[in-house]
Amino acid sequence: MSRPNLALIGATGAVGTVMRDIVSTRDDIWGEIRLVASPRSAGKTLKVRGEDVVVQALAPEVFDGIDIAIFDVPDEVAAEWVPVAAARGAIAIDKSGTFRMEPDVPLVVPEVNPQDARQRPRGIISTPNCTTLSMMAAMGALHAVYGLKELVVASYQAVSGAGVAGPARLYDEVEALAGDRSVGQTAGDVRKVLANKLSDDSPFPAPIAFNVVPWAGSYKDGGWASEEVKLRNESRKILGIPDLKVSATCVRVPVVTTHSLAVHARFERDVTVADAHRVLEAAPTVVLMDDPANGVYPTPLDVVGNDPTYVGRIRQAFDFPNTLDLFVCGDNLRKGAALNAAEIAELVAREL
Amino acid sequence: MSRPNLALIGATGAVGTVMRDIVSTRDDIWGEIRLVASPRSAGKTLKVRGEDVVVQALAPEVFDGIDIAIFDVPDEVAAEWVPVAAARGAIAIDKSGTFRMEPDVPLVVPEVNPQDARQRPRGIISTPNCTTLSMMAAMGALHAVYGLKELVVASYQAVSGAGVAGPARLYDEVEALAGDRSVGQTAGDVRKVLANKLSDDSPFPAPIAFNVVPWAGSYKDGGWASEEVKLRNESRKILGIPDLKVSATCVRVPVVTTHSLAVHARFERDVTVADAHRVLEAAPTVVLMDDPANGVYPTPLDVVGNDPTYVGRIRQAFDFPNTLDLFVCGDNLRKGAALNAAEIAELVAREL
Ligand SMILES: NC(=O)c1ccc[n+]([C@@H]2O[C@H](COP(=O)([O-])OP(=O)(O)OC[C@H]3O[C@@H](n4cnc5c(N)ncnc54)[C@H](OP(=O)(O)O)[C@@H]3O)[C@@H](O)[C@H]2O)c1
Ligand SMILES: NC(=O)c1ccc[n+]([C@@H]2O[C@H](COP(=O)([O-])OP(=O)(O)OC[C@H]3O[C@@H](n4cnc5c(N)ncnc54)[C@H](OP(=O)(O)O)[C@@H]3O)[C@@H](O)[C@H]2O)c1
Repeated sequence: MSRPNLALIGATGAVGTVMRDIVSTRDDIWGEIRLVASPRSAGKTLKVRGEDVVVQALAPEVFDGIDIAIFDVPDEVAAEWVPVAAARGAIAIDKSGTFRMEPDVPLVVPEVNPQDARQRPRGIISTPNCTTLSMMAAMGALHAVYGLKELVVASYQAVSGAGVAGPARLYDEVEALAGDRSVGQTAGDVRKVLANKLSDDSPFPAPIAFNVVPWAGSYKDGGWASEEVKLRNESRKILGIPDLKVSATCVRVPVVTTHSLAVHARFERDVTVADAHRVLEAAPTVVLMDDPANGVYPTPLDVVGNDPTYVGRIRQAFDFPNTLDLFVCGDNLRKGAALNAAEIAELVAREL
Repeated sequence: MSRPNLALIGATGAVGTVMRDIVSTRDDIWGEIRLVASPRSAGKTLKVRGEDVVVQALAPEVFDGIDIAIFDVPDEVAAEWVPVAAARGAIAIDKSGTFRMEPDVPLVVPEVNPQDARQRPRGIISTPNCTTLSMMAAMGALHAVYGLKELVVASYQAVSGAGVAGPARLYDEVEALAGDRSVGQTAGDVRKVLANKLSDDSPFPAPIAFNVVPWAGSYKDGGWASEEVKLRNESRKILGIPDLKVSATCVRVPVVTTHSLAVHARFERDVTVADAHRVLEAAPTVVLMDDPANGVYPTPLDVVGNDPTYVGRIRQAFDFPNTLDLFVCGDNLRKGAALNAAEIAELVAREL
């Protein structure tokens, strides 16, 4: 067929901005690229593929002639508009949490389960939440060889995972606090400074500068945060292991972009550090940075802006059989969001 | 006996400064309090119990007439001088890593194993590393009732755990970066700004502002960091569980003071969230902050400067039997260091 037409819904957001950058720098297989956001942004001009494109307000007509629509919008907007896109004949690739766990919607990470993208009875393909995605390329490669059984995960999640408001708030707080070399030394001192200098309109439930906040998402039964439940359910679905054992604690940290995860992973088969190195070195979208004796391991500031999943600190657990402990970093706006959606779009486009 | 005399060795350091504050505010059971540091600090005047005291340079004579000497100095200084203090008849309470795992040196957390402080054939009592200590009051209380079997821990460690140089570096980096609302968005950008503005003399192996660094301590076989190995070995010794299974990943975060830990803990017996609440509420040095539906959980900025161990985010694991996931915060300079040493000193002093 001729070049497929692509619509980017939420083109002005944190993910949408990276999305425009990604489709502008990867092999250009697209016909028209249409940019869509809320009525607030309609008429704005944004760059994509080096050209100025006028943003359109989301409406049924924006899907006319579109083959693939990538949605990077809040859950409730996706819930309403993804089915509209599909009904108008576009294949909808959705980044929101709305459809991910529906049995007739595939949840796809192209390195792990590309075949699932072909079964899309509703014309919808979901892409996972950024925390799960940050480790999937690595864990999928290890699972394929050693058979994953259990995951215990603690996250170090960047503020841009909360959208454009996240980095804005972190920069605001850092500016409000910088220069005072006593902050963070008595309980509540930072809260007081921030209350004086900033509005309390933060995307985070506590100060995020000089702090870590053990909460991400909404409240779920049993005291779980929705992000922790997603990490469990989405990992199971992507890897195709319905009885995978998962416990996660999700924590927000004052990092702009790039999520990190401390992963404790138990496999069916024995696996050494050397085995894991071999498998991960062979994984095309994984970069191994694992030579701690020489100070080599990934940190968010060295990973941000890059596509791969970075893995380091691989250790064989002392006391748990067939178990590795490791540290993974992935750019939550790239592989964690926009890149994975772009890869799905390219996968689908090749088979149109 | 008359009031015991106390010497604080390392009185000028990060832990030593909190130590002076703590002995100045707790019940005053001491005769003389002597302040000791390196020859660099000799002659300086520092406050303790509201009085000016002249710092003495470390030398054998500083232990003359001293009943209890608390050491808050680097490992190699402790290795040399703790035995000198003991040989001169003082009971040495040592915060360094030097003696902790020696079989004839007790490793004491007063809430957990106070009886161990009585068996001190060498006249030395060790106090645990700050990461282990940050969770011990809570894990000890749960262990006493439910029997701990396994721990998987990921840490969020404050910069003051690296001594006074830690906060100084974090404040420097924050000042160098504040106001630039693009930092942290491309790989290496922060490294470049810091290389231009600051010396590369940092206690951390990577930038710590806007970053997390998965390394704490020195290199150990198998790719482990010494802090991770300590957390395993010291937890076993303090709790008296020689076969406790432990895996830990230690990560430094841009928090000034207060370590946090995401803990996945498996017990011998079934334990619900309500059970854990009951046990932790009854533990005198633990504060339960666990009502996430109403935004109640501990964060370092709300805990810093306080003595107790704060626990929240307690959840029953979905997929692991007898297992809780939880989040613990403790001030690494207080309970994690100075307070625990002061409590040991008081325990010992009562029985002199
Ligand atoms: N940030 C991440 O790391 C990340 C990772 C994984 C998943 N996600 C998910 O990706 C989606 C987008 O997140 P984000 O971080 O990019 O959020 P964001 O920065 O807040 O951007 C939201 C986007 O949605 C648009 N939008 C909002 N309401 C709309 C409406 N009624 N009609 C049409 N467009 C509307 C906004 O347009 P205007 O500018 O016109 O308001 C903007 O383009 C969310 O579902 C989020 O959960 C984000
Ligand atoms: N910070 C924490 O959270 C923490 C927690 C647990 C354990 N620790 C341990 O506690 C100890 C002290 O740590 P810190 O963080 O307080 O370090 P710090 O801030 O660097 O202070 C070091 C102290 O040791 C003194 N010192 C250094 N060399 C000396 C020498 N040759 N003779 C006599 N005194 C000497 C210093 O005196 P000058 O000022 O005169 O140099 C200073 O008082 C270390 O063993 C550390 O591993 C620290």
